[in-house]
Amino acid sequence: MRAVQVVGYHQDLQMTELPVPVPTGPFDVIVKIGGAGVCRTDLHILEGQWAEKSNVALPYTIGHENAGWVAAVGNAVTNVREGDKVIVHPLITCGLCRACRAGDDVHCENSEFPGIDTHGGYAEYLRTSARSVVKIDESLEPADVAALADAGLTAYHAAAKAARRLRPGDRVVVIGAGGLGHIGVQVLKAITASEIIVVDRNPNALALATGIGAHHGVVADGGHVEQVLELTGGHGAEVVVDFVGEGGATKDGVAMLRRAGDYHVVGYGENIDVPTIDIISTEISFIGNLVGSYTDLVELMVLAAQGDVRLHTQKYQLDDFQTAISDLDGGKVRGRAILTP
Amino acid sequence: MRAVQVVGYHQDLQMTELPVPVPTGPFDVIVKIGGAGVCRTDLHILEGQWAEKSNVALPYTIGHENAGWVAAVGNAVTNVREGDKVIVHPLITCGLCRACRAGDDVHCENSEFPGIDTHGGYAEYLRTSARSVVKIDESLEPADVAALADAGLTAYHAAAKAARRLRPGDRVVVIGAGGLGHIGVQVLKAITASEIIVVDRNPNALALATGIGAHHGVVADGGHVEQVLELTGGHGAEVVVDFVGEGGATKDGVAMLRRAGDYHVVGYGENIDVPTIDIISTEISFIGNLVGSYTDLVELMVLAAQGDVRLHTQKYQLDDFQTAISDLDGGKVRGRAILTP
Amino acid sequence: MRAVQVVGYHQDLQMTELPVPVPTGPFDVIVKIGGAGVCRTDLHILEGQWAEKSNVALPYTIGHENAGWVAAVGNAVTNVREGDKVIVHPLITCGLCRACRAGDDVHCENSEFPGIDTHGGYAEYLRTSARSVVKIDESLEPADVAALADAGLTAYHAAAKAARRLRPGDRVVVIGAGGLGHIGVQVLKAITASEIIVVDRNPNALALATGIGAHHGVVADGGHVEQVLELTGGHGAEVVVDFVGEGGATKDGVAMLRRAGDYHVVGYGENIDVPTIDIISTEISFIGNLVGSYTDLVELMVLAAQGDVRLHTQKYQLDDFQTAISDLDGGKVRGRAILTP
Amino acid sequence: MRAVQVVGYHQDLQMTELPVPVPTGPFDVIVKIGGAGVCRTDLHILEGQWAEKSNVALPYTIGHENAGWVAAVGNAVTNVREGDKVIVHPLITCGLCRACRAGDDVHCENSEFPGIDTHGGYAEYLRTSARSVVKIDESLEPADVAALADAGLTAYHAAAKAARRLRPGDRVVVIGAGGLGHIGVQVLKAITASEIIVVDRNPNALALATGIGAHHGVVADGGHVEQVLELTGGHGAEVVVDFVGEGGATKDGVAMLRRAGDYHVVGYGENIDVPTIDIISTEISFIGNLVGSYTDLVELMVLAAQGDVRLHTQKYQLDDFQTAISDLDGGKVRGRAILTP
Repeated sequence: MRAVQVVGYHQDLQMTELPVPVPTGPFDVIVKIGGAGVCRTDLHILEGQWAEKSNVALPYTIGHENAGWVAAVGNAVTNVREGDKVIVHPLITCGLCRACRAGDDVHCENSEFPGIDTHGGYAEYLRTSARSVVKIDESLEPADVAALADAGLTAYHAAAKAARRLRPGDRVVVIGAGGLGHIGVQVLKAITASEIIVVDRNPNALALATGIGAHHGVVADGGHVEQVLELTGGHGAEVVVDFVGEGGATKDGVAMLRRAGDYHVVGYGENIDVPTIDIISTEISFIGNLVGSYTDLVELMVLAAQGDVRLHTQKYQLDDFQTAISDLDGGKVRGRAILTP
Repeated sequence: MRAVQVVGYHQDLQMTELPVPVPTGPFDVIVKIGGAGVCRTDLHILEGQWAEKSNVALPYTIGHENAGWVAAVGNAVTNVREGDKVIVHPLITCGLCRACRAGDDVHCENSEFPGIDTHGGYAEYLRTSARSVVKIDESLEPADVAALADAGLTAYHAAAKAARRLRPGDRVVVIGAGGLGHIGVQVLKAITASEIIVVDRNPNALALATGIGAHHGVVADGGHVEQVLELTGGHGAEVVVDFVGEGGATKDGVAMLRRAGDYHVVGYGENIDVPTIDIISTEISFIGNLVGSYTDLVELMVLAAQGDVRLHTQKYQLDDFQTAISDLDGGKVRGRAILTP
Repeated sequence: MRAVQVVGYHQDLQMTELPVPVPTGPFDVIVKIGGAGVCRTDLHILEGQWAEKSNVALPYTIGHENAGWVAAVGNAVTNVREGDKVIVHPLITCGLCRACRAGDDVHCENSEFPGIDTHGGYAEYLRTSARSVVKIDESLEPADVAALADAGLTAYHAAAKAARRLRPGDRVVVIGAGGLGHIGVQVLKAITASEIIVVDRNPNALALATGIGAHHGVVADGGHVEQVLELTGGHGAEVVVDFVGEGGATKDGVAMLRRAGDYHVVGYGENIDVPTIDIISTEISFIGNLVGSYTDLVELMVLAAQGDVRLHTQKYQLDDFQTAISDLDGGKVRGRAILTP
Repeated sequence: MRAVQVVGYHQDLQMTELPVPVPTGPFDVIVKIGGAGVCRTDLHILEGQWAEKSNVALPYTIGHENAGWVAAVGNAVTNVREGDKVIVHPLITCGLCRACRAGDDVHCENSEFPGIDTHGGYAEYLRTSARSVVKIDESLEPADVAALADAGLTAYHAAAKAARRLRPGDRVVVIGAGGLGHIGVQVLKAITASEIIVVDRNPNALALATGIGAHHGVVADGGHVEQVLELTGGHGAEVVVDFVGEGGATKDGVAMLRRAGDYHVVGYGENIDVPTIDIISTEISFIGNLVGSYTDLVELMVLAAQGDVRLHTQKYQLDDFQTAISDLDGGKVRGRAILTP
């Protein structure tokens, strides 16, 4: 089969021919790829930023946002069969450690991450596990939902976690109206009746956000903290979900938070740097968010099937991988770039 | 009556004679003081650190940790009557704002803080509100529990909030075995079956902590992070409750935290300063803790009555207020200093 | 002022002239009635069903679903002022008992219930308390929302409590598409992304329910349990909210419940009568629901202001109270009957 | 190996010789039995009460409370190795269904139940799964903890679930001071600071219960409801955990419950039969409890290793199985009967 591989850092990806993987372990699942998301993380991998962390041996096949059809299964697999349309959770988890047993598989002590530390999905076929595949509704196409497997799943996880405390009348500020923020707004709209305020530097992104359900768009032009305070009766918002985490976003975000409020950290880059006296006197919390669990992905696929969450995609043939990478790097992709077979 | 007042910053407190307060508002409660805690905050007030924040007009009576007997009540008071033995919640809250209606009265939008921004309890009588008095068990004496009204209540609140997620087999690190940490350990012991690890610079304080229920005492001598990791199988603890919050405690504390762990901020001084990438990749949370609610104080008084929480006190006559203040400032108080009538 | 009173059981209500109430207690609030809901409970009161329970002295003014404008306030009232547009929580609560302090004021140990055990709102003015009035949005009219004060509040409380465990992909069965069920469906639609299945004997009520957001309407014609099982993949629903509670509804409802499911009891009449072996082997729960708290009413008013919850009303002049009562008794009211000044 | 089998209903169990099981599936674990609990359910099996429900083919090996040492493992097992001391969760679960993925494996859609519907542990060896074995502390012996695998696990699950809402000052009534109640009391004592009231017909059982931490023992002699109300200030208890569920226990138990209280159903026999009007007007809940999850068993083993939970056992050689069965049937076992190799 064809597969696109990292052959060296600071080098172009390279198409190669590999044998189609077959199930060897009892829980192996081979997925024929229908769509593989091209993610900014892929650019960072090529720049070598993940080399030390992942410790992956080159060459290897990149791509961690995958969906397609089940092509073959190991002898202990009972939850999917050949031909099933599936999206692939980014992690392969063990199912036996404490975290897995509690349903919190993202913190699995023995996980693999295809596309990061083992072969991924810029290819015709991917090897994953029975524990990683979620059957999707007939109405959904793999190439349309592939990018929900990681970026979308992270946004869902944060928004759903944040939503647990949101009641009608509460306000939630979403910082960043890009890919993740876009999903976050749709999720919050679907599962809460709270007022959604989106903050972004880009007025077009804000227009998009209010078009899909945000109640207010606030341009991050220097007056945005004041504006959010005004929109929240001077109190600040009960919840901030920060999909940016750099460029001063966290300082501004904390200033927008109400007493006893929750600050959800999703985007990253800068430090959370806040005096403990401020944390205790206002009794606020900072809550980290990693990618979602398998159960989160099941729920996100329900929202997608119901039309509650939609994603704009720009598709490329697998052979055109270099164009996709270049377009992403050059800021020419609207929504998410997807490789299709 | 006699009352000890702040007459100027950087000046000694001064005993004065004032009329005994009488109920004027419908919910007023006049408490005959049986014990008033002498707190480090009182030293800070004298140094002027609270002048701007509290905006209190001098002279005024100091003292925010109070207990005693109800001496008189306003005409709408139904929950206590003359002669009842009570501890006094540090805040007078409105009962009508959103926070009060949700049982979260600590975030009352219209609260007063006797001893900080209005007359307090270094006196024979204190004016407070029906919403602030908690009847205590016959077996308890006001002078013994007065210091639980603020310092103890803060420790209870943090420990009880932290305990909600603690299951048997989980580990909780308590940073700081001083006054608050001492209460925190007793509370955790009473309401969880988790393993309690206490970290402090002072081996004597650790000995005291293990004597009242902590499973391990770790001297903060530079090797303490390693030791906690060793005690937790290399994973770190599910929960850290930090009663110190300065001198590098937070950096060390974060290093002791398990993936998906909760870091409870109680002590203050330095900044929480952590890369967002670390917060999201381990999915940890930082949770602020203010003083406890009225309901928290009711629960703490139950623990005190059951003998689950005990406090060492050193008593002084009200007239000897200056000795108490000087002893505290000079590090000569073991446990808590209490003024008694 | 004019007031409509119960002068004897099994007798008609009677219009009488009374002095306009004035604030006597510090937290008294006098409301000029803009709308008073005419409720089936009012018919039961006239039939004497509440005589023993309420122990009210006749004659007294009936009416427990009230909204209007603040006309006068006691000297300790800070949360509303003359002229404010308000809806009135059905209970006057003490604010000092354990339940009130925890925000669970519905279980107040010293509450009054205007219209049931003291003078209510079929009148020009009503005396209530600062703790019972919720300011409503400028866009809302008292006569339009009055019926949300009790019936709507009960439905909101149950739906919001049920929703806490509902995730995308879960199913919730609403038994009964009448007044309460109608509100319940709108609330579930607003705060969850779950699939809503409504069961009722009346196909018109089901049409109305699917028109406001229910995904499926199932006619209770004998085959309804099978139909719900079919709609839920044979598993049953994660949650049942039963607004009927009589005529066999509970037996059918339990048969529609999934393992580990929640059965919310709201309507009443028959017994919950289920073998303990069935409760433990499927690990289901039966959860009682009373009217909502003050905080619930605040949230419901937000949903009303946002247009998420709407109620059909049929208005009558206060002087036409007998027509309203007769229409309700005769089944001639569509939606809710409201008396207006 | 020797194995004790059901060869027919209403017949004695019979010792037979079978091949030692070997791992055939990738997750198989073979356990050399160190202790097998003899449970009242085993008597019911012999009476044919489970024949239809389990649909098991005779003959088969009985015994569902097992602990021992790992003797062999399938090729995908990573969490235990030969020689590990383990207790065996009563269910073999699939790990792939919705319930398993959420950590709620007790509701697994594809589970097996050794000793009930497949070969159990009255034998020298048992085949189970990697998902069912919990490593136990070196200080614990299989024969001492085996009975915690099912009966103890059920009690732990109910007590831990009940404890989530218990705060200091709350009261919990434990109905039944037998095997399960005994564990329940110890668990509640370990993880709450609430007041524990135990109700039983047998004064000796009550003496035992107060000896291990219950605060009050109430003889169920007709005046017990009054006594509990008296002990709870006339309000009733916040929580009732009913380990009996027959002989009128539920009616009495409901009468002991406070407004907004939780009634945990664990024992079974009679019906919960309560008017819906009573459920809604007091807003109480009835909460079913099945056996605990794998995670619950891990936690219970921590409590056992800490000495927080102890069980009295009476041991018999495997060859003396008939004596054990007869003793249990004849009421001659104090604590739990255990078969040892």
